[in-house]
Formats: sequence, C-alpha cells, structure tokens
Amino acid sequence: MIIVMQTTATQEQVKKVEEKLVALGFKTHPIYGEVKTVIGAIGDKRLLDTQMITSMPGVENIVPIMKPYKLVSRELKQSKTIIQIDDIAIGGQEIVIMAGPCAVENEEVFFETARKVKAAGAKILRGGAFKPRTSPYSFQGLEEEGLKMLDIARKETGLKIVTEVVDTRDVEVVSRYSDILQIGARNMQNFRLLKEVGASGKPVLLKRGLSATIEEWLMAAEYIMSSGNPNIILCERGIRTFETATRNTIDISAIPVVKELSHLPIIADPSHATGTWKYVDALSKAAVAAGADGLIIEVHNDPSRALCDGPQSLRPEKFAQLMEELKPVALAVHRTI
Amino acid sequence: MIIVMQTTATQEQVKKVEEKLVALGFKTHPIYGEVKTVIGAIGDKRLLDTQMITSMPGVENIVPIMKPYKLVSRELKQSKTIIQIDDIAIGGQEIVIMAGPCAVENEEVFFETARKVKAAGAKILRGGAFKPRTSPYSFQGLEEEGLKMLDIARKETGLKIVTEVVDTRDVEVVSRYSDILQIGARNMQNFRLLKEVGASGKPVLLKRGLSATIEEWLMAAEYIMSSGNPNIILCERGIRTFETATRNTIDISAIPVVKELSHLPIIADPSHATGTWKYVDALSKAAVAAGADGLIIEVHNDPSRALCDGPQSLRPEKFAQLMEELKPVALAVHRTI
Amino acid sequence: MIIVMQTTATQEQVKKVEEKLVALGFKTHPIYGEVKTVIGAIGDKRLLDTQMITSMPGVENIVPIMKPYKLVSRELKQSKTIIQIDDIAIGGQEIVIMAGPCAVENEEVFFETARKVKAAGAKILRGGAFKPRTSPYSFQGLEEEGLKMLDIARKETGLKIVTEVVDTRDVEVVSRYSDILQIGARNMQNFRLLKEVGASGKPVLLKRGLSATIEEWLMAAEYIMSSGNPNIILCERGIRTFETATRNTIDISAIPVVKELSHLPIIADPSHATGTWKYVDALSKAAVAAGADGLIIEVHNDPSRALCDGPQSLRPEKFAQLMEELKPVALAVHRTI
Amino acid sequence: MIIVMQTTATQEQVKKVEEKLVALGFKTHPIYGEVKTVIGAIGDKRLLDTQMITSMPGVENIVPIMKPYKLVSRELKQSKTIIQIDDIAIGGQEIVIMAGPCAVENEEVFFETARKVKAAGAKILRGGAFKPRTSPYSFQGLEEEGLKMLDIARKETGLKIVTEVVDTRDVEVVSRYSDILQIGARNMQNFRLLKEVGASGKPVLLKRGLSATIEEWLMAAEYIMSSGNPNIILCERGIRTFETATRNTIDISAIPVVKELSHLPIIADPSHATGTWKYVDALSKAAVAAGADGLIIEVHNDPSRALCDGPQSLRPEKFAQLMEELKPVALAVHRTI
Repeated sequence: MIIVMQTTATQEQVKKVEEKLVALGFKTHPIYGEVKTVIGAIGDKRLLDTQMITSMPGVENIVPIMKPYKLVSRELKQSKTIIQIDDIAIGGQEIVIMAGPCAVENEEVFFETARKVKAAGAKILRGGAFKPRTSPYSFQGLEEEGLKMLDIARKETGLKIVTEVVDTRDVEVVSRYSDILQIGARNMQNFRLLKEVGASGKPVLLKRGLSATIEEWLMAAEYIMSSGNPNIILCERGIRTFETATRNTIDISAIPVVKELSHLPIIADPSHATGTWKYVDALSKAAVAAGADGLIIEVHNDPSRALCDGPQSLRPEKFAQLMEELKPVALAVHRTI
Repeated sequence: MIIVMQTTATQEQVKKVEEKLVALGFKTHPIYGEVKTVIGAIGDKRLLDTQMITSMPGVENIVPIMKPYKLVSRELKQSKTIIQIDDIAIGGQEIVIMAGPCAVENEEVFFETARKVKAAGAKILRGGAFKPRTSPYSFQGLEEEGLKMLDIARKETGLKIVTEVVDTRDVEVVSRYSDILQIGARNMQNFRLLKEVGASGKPVLLKRGLSATIEEWLMAAEYIMSSGNPNIILCERGIRTFETATRNTIDISAIPVVKELSHLPIIADPSHATGTWKYVDALSKAAVAAGADGLIIEVHNDPSRALCDGPQSLRPEKFAQLMEELKPVALAVHRTI
Repeated sequence: MIIVMQTTATQEQVKKVEEKLVALGFKTHPIYGEVKTVIGAIGDKRLLDTQMITSMPGVENIVPIMKPYKLVSRELKQSKTIIQIDDIAIGGQEIVIMAGPCAVENEEVFFETARKVKAAGAKILRGGAFKPRTSPYSFQGLEEEGLKMLDIARKETGLKIVTEVVDTRDVEVVSRYSDILQIGARNMQNFRLLKEVGASGKPVLLKRGLSATIEEWLMAAEYIMSSGNPNIILCERGIRTFETATRNTIDISAIPVVKELSHLPIIADPSHATGTWKYVDALSKAAVAAGADGLIIEVHNDPSRALCDGPQSLRPEKFAQLMEELKPVALAVHRTI
Repeated sequence: MIIVMQTTATQEQVKKVEEKLVALGFKTHPIYGEVKTVIGAIGDKRLLDTQMITSMPGVENIVPIMKPYKLVSRELKQSKTIIQIDDIAIGGQEIVIMAGPCAVENEEVFFETARKVKAAGAKILRGGAFKPRTSPYSFQGLEEEGLKMLDIARKETGLKIVTEVVDTRDVEVVSRYSDILQIGARNMQNFRLLKEVGASGKPVLLKRGLSATIEEWLMAAEYIMSSGNPNIILCERGIRTFETATRNTIDISAIPVVKELSHLPIIADPSHATGTWKYVDALSKAAVAAGADGLIIEVHNDPSRALCDGPQSLRPEKFAQLMEELKPVALAVHRTI
C-alpha cells in the first residue's frame, strides 16, 4: 500500500509512520516528492486495518495496491469455477436458465408454471418461500409449507431448486428442501447469514446489493468462501440509481468486470432489475451477449393474480419464445442454451 | 389510488379493471380524458398489493395516493413521540448526545473514553460488540465479552447503552446488556431482525440504509412498530451517492422531511456519514440546526490504535469542545443540550 | 393531471383549486376519498406550468398523467424514424457503426485510423475538434484546423463525419465540415445550443447527460425537434452512479425503454461508458443484442500516444475483430452490420 | 503520481514505463512489492494527461497524488478569498443573503419582492432573465427586458444583482446589467461559458452541477480562474441521488470539504436543493451552522402566480421571519447576518 502524507507533514511524522509500518511487518520505501512525501509499504497484509495508519498525525490518506479479496480473485485462481449440481454445470459452456414465480403461492399455479418452464428448457426452478418484502403488510411467503411445494415440484419435474433464505435460523431447513440457497440483494451484507450459508456447503446464489460496489459484492462472496464454501454464483440484479424508468438499473458492465476480477460464475436477473416484463426480453439477450453464465427469470402462469412481483413476470408462452430467441444470441458468443 | 390506463386501452379493459377494484372493495371513479382514461379508486387498502392491478391488460401504472406506512405516520399520530429511558427523553426539548468508540476493544481504553464522554455531557454510551464489517478479515467485535464490558461501563458511569444487534439469534442477549438496540444501515431491510427487535419491546435505534429512500426507512420502522414496539429512534447516517470526498453523503434534508411525515424522533450520525473526524464538527452543528433530536458521535481515546473506524473518531478533548460549541446552536433553535 | 389535496385541505381550498383549473381551461373531476380528496383535471395542457397549482393552499402534489414531450413520442408518431445520410440509414434494419479517435490530433495518425475503421466496416468517422475537458490544462482540441482534417478524411475515405459542437457560436462552422453534429453529455441541457442545432437542420447525435433521466433526455430532444429539426439520434453513454469499477454505468435498459417511448433511433457508446477498452467488446455485443441501432466506438492507431481518452480506445485490429464478432449477434436479433 | 503495474507485468514493461516517465520529466522510484510493482513518479506535472501512461502495456492504473486544481486550492493560497462588491464582502465574517424570485416576470411583483427582501436584510437581489428550463414549452425568461428590470430594481433599492448567463453570446449584455454572473448547475461544465465569464472579470456565482463531484466543481472554478478571474463564489445547490422526497439532495458536507480544499467562499441554495419552501427554513439554518458564507433563497410575492419555481419560493413575510431566526444561528458559529 501507499501512504500519502499531507503537504504539511513533518519529517518526524513521516518517521513515526515508517516506524509503525515496520512494527506491523512492512518494508517501507519513502519517496520524497516536491510537495508531498509518500511511503510505499511492502507486505501482503490483507488483514491489516489500514485505519490505524490513517489516523496517525500527518497522514493524508492510504492507497491500497492489492485487492481486499483473495479467495474469490482471479489472481489466486485463474481458471473459471464451475458449480456442478448433478448434471448441471454453472459457469461452463452452457448458459443455465433458472425460471419460476417470485413466490410459491398456490400449488396448482406453481406446478403448472414449473412444468412449463421445464418444457421451455429451464434447468432450475426458482420460487420464494421466505419473502423479504418492503411492507410488513405484504404477503411474506408460505415459509416451510412453500419449501415443501418446492420439494414436490423438484421431484415431479426433475428441475433443481433455488430459493431464498433470509434468517440464520432457517439455513438448515431451507438447505434440506433446495439445491441452491439464494442470498437476496437486501441481505448481501448480512454477514452472519453469509457465514451460515458458507458453513452449509450448499451452492449459493449471491445477489448484488442495491447499492453494493462490485468490490463489496466480491467481499461478500469472500465471506462465504472463507467460511469454507467455494460454490458461489454471483447474480447481477440491478443497482439503485437516480433513473426511475426502470425499478433498478441493470449494470451489464458488471458481467465483464466480474469475469476479469473473479473466477466465480455470474448470472443476471433481468426481471428484478427492470421490474417490468416488457424489458426482460431485451435485457436477457444483452446479458447473454455480454457473457453471463446464466439468467434467472420470473415466470408466472397468471401474473395478474400473483401475490408478488406480477408486473415483472413473463407468461410461460412468452418465456418459451424468449428461450428460442436466446439460442442464436448464445451461439453468437460461442455458448449454448 | 389512481389507475392510469394506456392510451390504447379499450373500454372493455377499463371495465375489467373497475370490476376487479370493486371486487377488492374499492369504489371506482373513472375519468375519461382526451387521450387517456384514469380510474380513481376509493378505499384505504394499505394491504392491497397493487401489482395484481398493474398486471391487468391496458393498465399503464398505478399512482398511490396514501402513504404505505400507517403507524409511524404523522397522519395517524400528530404529537411527537418521546422515547423515555429512565430520565432521558429522546424527542423532547433536549437534544440527546450518544458517544463512544466504534467497537468495544479494550477494557481500559473503553472505560476511559466512557468517563470522558460522560464528563462532556453525553447521556448515552455507544460501542459495538457485534461488528458488521465489509471484510471477513477485519475485527468482528468481542461479542458477549464486549457486551459485558458495556454493562460494567453502564454501571460505573450511569450512562445508558446503545449497541448493535446483527442476528436474530442475538436479540435476547444484546437486550440483556443494553438500553437501546441498534439496527445498522446494512440490516435496515433485514425484516426478520426488525420483527425480533419489534417483539423485544426495547427501544430501537434504526439507522437508514445506504440506499434506502425515506419511505423505505419509514416502512422498516413500520415493521418494528407493527410487531408491537413503538420505541423507535430514526438515525440518518449518510446515503450512497457518486461523491467520494466523504464516505457517504449525509442527507440533512431527511431531518425536516422525516419530522413532517412521522412522529418518531430522528437523530444524526455525522461520524459514519463522513468517515472523517474533521467534518464531524460542522455536520453536528448542521444537524442540530436542522432540527435533529440527537447526535451519535464516535469518540475514541486513541483513534490511531482503534481497531475500527479510527479515522472518524474524535478525541475526547475535541468532543468536549464540540459539546460546548453545540450549546449555542441548540439554543438558537430553541433546544438545549 | 391529478391534483392530490392534503389530508387537512378544506372544502374552500378544493373549490379554489377547481376554479383555478377551470380558468386555465381544464374540466375538473373531484374524487372525495376517505382521507384525501383528489381532483382529476382534463385537458392536454402541456404548456401549463403545474407549479402555479402546486403552490396553492391545500395542495399536496400534482401527478402528471401525460408525458411532457410530444414531438419525440411514440404516441404522436408510431413508426420508427430513420435518419438518412446519403446512403446510410440510421434506425433501419442495418446497425450503423461510428468509429474513430476521441480527438483529431495528428494528420497521419488520424487518416491511418480512418482508413482502418473504414476497411473494418464502419460507416461514420468520429473525431473531436472541439473537446470539452474537465481540466483547463488538458488538450482542448485543434478546433477549425481539426475540422479541416475531418473534411479531408471524409473526402478521402467516403466516410461520413460526426463531431462535437460545444458553443452556439460554432454551430455554423462545425455544420460546414461535418455530417452529424454531436451534442456531448455535458451539454445535453445547454438549451441554447440545442435550439441552435435544431435550427441548423443537420442530423444531431444527442448524448445522454451523466445524470439525466430518460425523460429529461427526451425533453432535450424535444428542444431540438421543436426548433424544426427531426433528425435526432439518441446516444446512451453511461450514467453516473456510485460504482467506480467503470467510469460510468452504461444503462442498457435505456435502449428498450427509449424504443418504447420514442420513435427516434438510439445508439450506444461503450467506450465512454466504461472508460476502458477491455470492456468495449462485451458491451458492444450487449447493446446490439438489446436492440441498439448503432454503436460509436473509440479507435486509435496508437492509444498510448493519444492526447485524449487513450485507455478506452481499441486498436484498429481489435476493432476489426469486434466487427466480425458483432455480425452473428446482429443476425441473432434479425439485424445486419 | 504512482503507477501501479499489473501482477503479470514484465520487467521490460516496467522499464519502458520508467523510460517514458523520465522522457516526460519525472524522476522515478520503483518499488518492487511481493506481488506487484509500483512506480513513484516525482514531478509536479499537472498538465500531463496521465492517459498516455495508462495505455502502456503492463500498467494497471495510475494513482494521482496531487490535486488536479491549483489556483483554487488552499495549498496555493491559504488565506480565505473575500469577494468585495462595493461594501459587500462575500467570504468575510458576515453571512451574505441573496434573495428574490426565480424569474423576473412582472415589473410590479418584482419590485415589490425586491423592496421586501431588502427590508428583511438581503444584500443581493436574485432574478432570472435567461431561464434554462427542462421543457421547451416552459417560460424561458424575459431576456434583455428582464435585465433592464433588474437594473431598475438595483438603482431603486441599492441591492446588488445576481443573474444567470446561459450562452457565451450573452456574457457581455448580462455583465452590463448585473453585479454577479451566475453559472447554473446545468452549465457547470459548459467550458466555453466558463472561459467567457472568466475573461469578463465580473464576480461569478458558480453552482455545483447536479452530478458533479466536488473535484469537478473545483476544476470548473479553475477554468474561470485560469482565464484571469479570481472572483468566484461557489454555490452548493443539491446533487442528484436516488432519493425523491426532495428534488435534489443538498450535500451539506460539501461546505466543510470545500473550505478545507479551497480558499473560495461557498454559499448554499436551499430553495433549488429541496424544491419545496417547507424545508428551506431548516436547511438554511443547517447551511449557516455548517459554515456557509451566504445563502441564496427564492422569495416571491405571490408564489401561486410564479411562472417558475413557485413551490420552492418563500413569501416575503416568511423570509423576513427566517432572517430573524438565522441571526442567533450565525452568532452561534461566530458570524453575523
């Protein structure tokens, strides 16, 4: 790291910072500029809280040179990680499609939707049993009853299941009924939950927080991986900006950026990002063209009766058509669907 | 609420939307404009998920007329809520100052800091035992051992204690050792945790999420209040914007806005908002002048040895000086400190 | 539009608002809800500044029902606008590629780059003669000398020219040497400049402002069109968000949103959006897959010697390869390049 | 500055970068870390476009150590700049209040408002003759006729005049009728206009752009100052964020930050920042408490008839009351009004 000293820093202050750095195990290289002094500090001390140095008299700021994450970085592991769930490989040559309703609400509607997304080519079924809702008065999910429906749908269709877990106390039960644990955007920095899903060993779908930088998102993945679980799928789902024409702004650039920085697979969620089914088509194609390893799309048999996120759900026939249209886009970037 | 129909909506579609609204218990008032039809729907149905309507054919969008929160709103309760903790009244005429280090790290330093903030006029002692940290490699707090130190400091100084709870499983133990449960910015939409602290009945300090709108923040308070706990103190601590000169951007406007919309007291956290002790002075004064009911300020006996957030901590003597300087500002807006 | 009255509004206040609306030529339809009164006002008065109403006693807020733009909207003109520049059609079935260096700096490098982008399939040559630079100490462009080089390159290669105009006083001279006038992001709300390029009749490339909503962007286009110039090409070039991994965040959603709201063609600028040549490839493909009518890409024969925006420029050989890779993506969405 | 080399950079690449730096007049100090090499480059070359270096093979990124601005910085000039306009000193011990309507619309209303703000203690009269409006269909200002009214009001009341200039072609005429030239938020990066007002020598009120960082804002001031005009007053008027409860989010932190970085005076515009007169009171007090050197407040004799920005205008009597209430706040921070 580089310590930038203030213009007014005294030689004594520079010396004290150097001494502190040496005491912490760094080798120091001061550079005396015309106006400011900077100190190069050598030593790969990711654990060091740089704040101790920042607060020392005469220090202007600290410029980290190394990334704060390690296990999830491409620097550590250059080959792409592939998450294998039986015969499904996420991060490989095939683009994996996850689809289903926002929430599991009604057995009949849910199974019908499940069968249709399977027929259209989806490999993984999504559906929420525990729903984090902005309002305490909104439908909060069927909880364990919903998990059981997911399990039945899994057995009946052969689809794998991804579903959200919102509380450390539920990790065990959700793990029992599902194949992938989803960490929602609002819980991306619920560090205790990250540690629990890390300890569970189950594949984790880690959604990006609404206002999380890519670095913070990778640090959240680092929490899971440093708890012993390397099976992480990152999911871009839109960030919060000033634009209100769409619910959030999908950050398509995050796809190539994450692929450069990390070995983990990354998928996109065009349904939550836009909040409107009309734009799901264009953004699904964009995400695939940009290199996404998968998509998670909301599909509902009857959006106008959905208890949750109806406006962003595709009808099954529209979803089937999108699946057809995505195939040539995938081929154009040397992938398959 | 108002349902705006698309320009191309048919009379049949308008009729179907009206029928649905009537079935849901609304009275409808269609207005046929020159280009578009809008339907006024009367009925205070806060519980209704408007998404069912939004997905109907011909509907362009829904404009809510009523606020989505109820219990926390000024419309329901016009007099300001005062949270009483023994002889301390938060939301009254006196501006309440909370101060202390970011994390409880070391007994000696902590007690020394506690005694000094008490001497300077703080009424409540802050200090984290459970720390949500961006990096898994950073100091995560002393946990129950830290809580015990808080408890000793409370007994020794007579200060009340505010400390963060980050996991539903810890609500009970944190409640045992503290007077106010803090919900941090990253957990503002951890709805299960909101319900648990709601059920606990303990006063709650609810920090605004980094990318939470004021409406979402009040909805988070509604979760706590609808779980039976009316003792909520809102805390503005900066939002995430494009500006990087300060760690976050403190939204001082949120103070008068919240005071207009809600009866709950609101305080400000200039330390976390700016991330730099140098700006704490100016922003503390600004918050008081804007009408804040209190401040929460980081104070550390030796910031350069703090394991957490040293750069934003004031030294005790600087804090004491700030306390003196805040008094005339408080008086200028007819408050006391 | 809908006028929402405050909970505390008196009948007298409602009446006064109605009278004012009637005086302004509206028909009014009050709806008396259980808690609030709202007034529907019929009449397509785009010219009305709603602020006169907003300031009346008892008014809470105004909800516009009609879009504020008219000439650029799909509601007015349903068929897509195609901008014809000799044999080049922007907005048609073919995706039009614009390419070239950020600034015209050096005759030799510029002509060499021009020949190479032409050979790779670009139809339009970009290059700045007037450069809006954040620092007064940065290279500000060759001005008229640069325009003359553009003109020579046009004659030599047959490429059409797009170049930026930054001052009302320069519209005439820039029009003389170029085929498309570019309005840069920083000038998107330089309304005088919009009117001047509107009056010029030349095709205009209107970049989205860094913090402009899609609605404000379309209003800027409305300025140009209402000055008599219908030849407008919109260009998404990234918005300012909290994310710093890329220079700006390209809002790919803006492509389908604009295509829904407006008949104008829309292209994307992946070079300025990301600020890094490494991500131009993925984002060019994403923009095409999402439905963009064209791309504008920075290409420089020797990026490390560019006086402006070198880091985001592709070398000509990389650009030629990208052009090849874009073809199947275009075909996948039924377009050609 | 510091050049950070990629992990994979070769010694040859490091050598080439060093050679380039030496050729550009820098002294180089490479530091060979365990994983990465960084090169310290000494030499105060503000003029250097770092992009030439960034594009070199093996370079990861460049970390500037010096601020990009010079003339406006505290490092160059430590004493605060005071702008003297006859007997009014902006940046001194007294807090200067500017007030008046958004636009000059009607002689009678304008003069009446002018007399009242003068009586309440304002020193400078604001009023727009050239109005940058989001919609081409909104009132665009009375132009030169408006300037003449401003001039009459000046003579009649003795107030100084601040008014906006929006076009390089108008700088001369606006200078003739006013005492301070205002550069609006939308023109903060209209670099040609900055140079023209720089050349005019007239005091300039430079509003912060809606999405401008503090650094970009100071760079805009640097444009004016490097054109020979040191009389610049910075004005914080709110930035664009995701929050919609207020029109923009006033960045009160910008006040202490600017005061640390620059010697220029800084004022605040609570009217445009919030868009609502209700919050002007609290934010005016906050800005003064945070150290603002002045305020610019919209006051209109009859807000409900204003052609522009009525909702954010105070009535004269409310303004007079605010002036009284601001006095003790100013005193509390050792200033006067």
